[in-house]
Amino acid sequence: MATLVEIEDPADPRLADYRDLRDVELRKALEAEHGLFLAEGEKVVRRSVEAGFEPRSFLMAPRWLEGLGDVLATTDAPCYVLSEALAEQVTGFHVHRGALASLERRPLPSVESVVAGARSVLVLEDLVDHTNVGAIFRCGAALGFDAVLLAPRCADPLYRRSIKVGMGAVFTLPWTRVDDWATALPRLSELGFTTVALTLADDATEVEQAVAGLDKVALVLGSEGHGLSPRWERAADRRAVIPMAAGIDSLNVAAATAVACYVTARRS
Amino acid sequence: MATLVEIEDPADPRLADYRDLRDVELRKALEAEHGLFLAEGEKVVRRSVEAGFEPRSFLMAPRWLEGLGDVLATTDAPCYVLSEALAEQVTGFHVHRGALASLERRPLPSVESVVAGARSVLVLEDLVDHTNVGAIFRCGAALGFDAVLLAPRCADPLYRRSIKVGMGAVFTLPWTRVDDWATALPRLSELGFTTVALTLADDATEVEQAVAGLDKVALVLGSEGHGLSPRWERAADRRAVIPMAAGIDSLNVAAATAVACYVTARRS
Repeated sequence: MATLVEIEDPADPRLADYRDLRDVELRKALEAEHGLFLAEGEKVVRRSVEAGFEPRSFLMAPRWLEGLGDVLATTDAPCYVLSEALAEQVTGFHVHRGALASLERRPLPSVESVVAGARSVLVLEDLVDHTNVGAIFRCGAALGFDAVLLAPRCADPLYRRSIKVGMGAVFTLPWTRVDDWATALPRLSELGFTTVALTLADDATEVEQAVAGLDKVALVLGSEGHGLSPRWERAADRRAVIPMAAGIDSLNVAAATAVACYVTARRS
Repeated sequence: MATLVEIEDPADPRLADYRDLRDVELRKALEAEHGLFLAEGEKVVRRSVEAGFEPRSFLMAPRWLEGLGDVLATTDAPCYVLSEALAEQVTGFHVHRGALASLERRPLPSVESVVAGARSVLVLEDLVDHTNVGAIFRCGAALGFDAVLLAPRCADPLYRRSIKVGMGAVFTLPWTRVDDWATALPRLSELGFTTVALTLADDATEVEQAVAGLDKVALVLGSEGHGLSPRWERAADRRAVIPMAAGIDSLNVAAATAVACYVTARRS
């Protein structure tokens, strides 16, 4: 059972994991240095612990203790209990869904182990928006993808906002980072995947045709602003596009991913 | 040609349209009372004027004047020119893409005129998130839908954030509000549309089957949290679901809309 620790001083050093949650740059540095990530909200906290991540601590207002009692029963980590006003002072924002947990990151698995047995894999190049990363994980999980690979510079799927938007899909969908950006796609091809880049390139074919009849597919997505790097676009085995009405700027990456995942998951 | 008006006092009453842009409730009241809406960013400002909306005024830092020169040449509205620091004081946030315009809303057209000639229509019930409304307009426009209808309580597609996320699709895709929530779906059926509700209801069929062979389709979407009202869910001619992997909470409404629009637009 977690040890309940009542906190009355917002400067209490034991709350260091929870400081200034709205400061993205500070949080990135702090979470990398300490190898931690934060889960926010009762449902996501529960899922993180159920997925086997080791809690460093919990932070919540008294009224959330009961709902998470069974989760707290499974761990010896401290649970800091404080008023919602005090929680807001520490974190810098109103904690809507009441509970936070700080958890240990785990070493990233190898690409080979993550894609072993997978039939449909998402590969994200340099997405910068945590909301998009979360939405794409949720989408991949909902539409039957088996794994996600991230380029070295893609935004962190264990960032609080990614996890929240993804409804915890990052805990259940196997994922890792590729260590070498330059060889990532050829390596997937060697592993038996047909890499299909989503792009507006001139030689792109409609996504439904591009994936038809394929066994193992890696669907490759670029960043929000500029799409894929020329290197990845060229390295992909196929280039695919979602057919769109004239004069439209294209779908945003989360909507495009949803469509492409749906089509790819149902390929025959 | 717009009259350039240099502003040095952030309290200048001529800037009333641009006050406190981060205060959603205040903005809703102000924009309704004065029948205005705001366009943000060079691209969206340009599209709003090109779509024929009447500008009340513009507000921008000097460096944006040149890029929007051709737009300013088409109007007699004043253009308030001020430093970016001053603009931030007035609006309450950093205006990333430099330019703002305040434009006159137009009377909403009738449902009949908006759906006349349409083959694929989106119907949004009570969405609350302006980001989702914008994303859905963009999605509908990109994937070949012809019109959008909104329930009386659906979030405003002319709210600044909706327009921005939608990349101005709200200017080009015909839309209006239904005046009577209770009769909205039966009325669409009378107009020859098969109303297809996206839902997790037990009797829902896969969306691809639900729309197969249909001529005129109205795809009906519910709110982010609770989905469709029971009334609308029952009133729809068909209930459809996007097939999903077990154990997932469902797609978010924007992703689900993207998939459903894609499938519906390609129905045969």
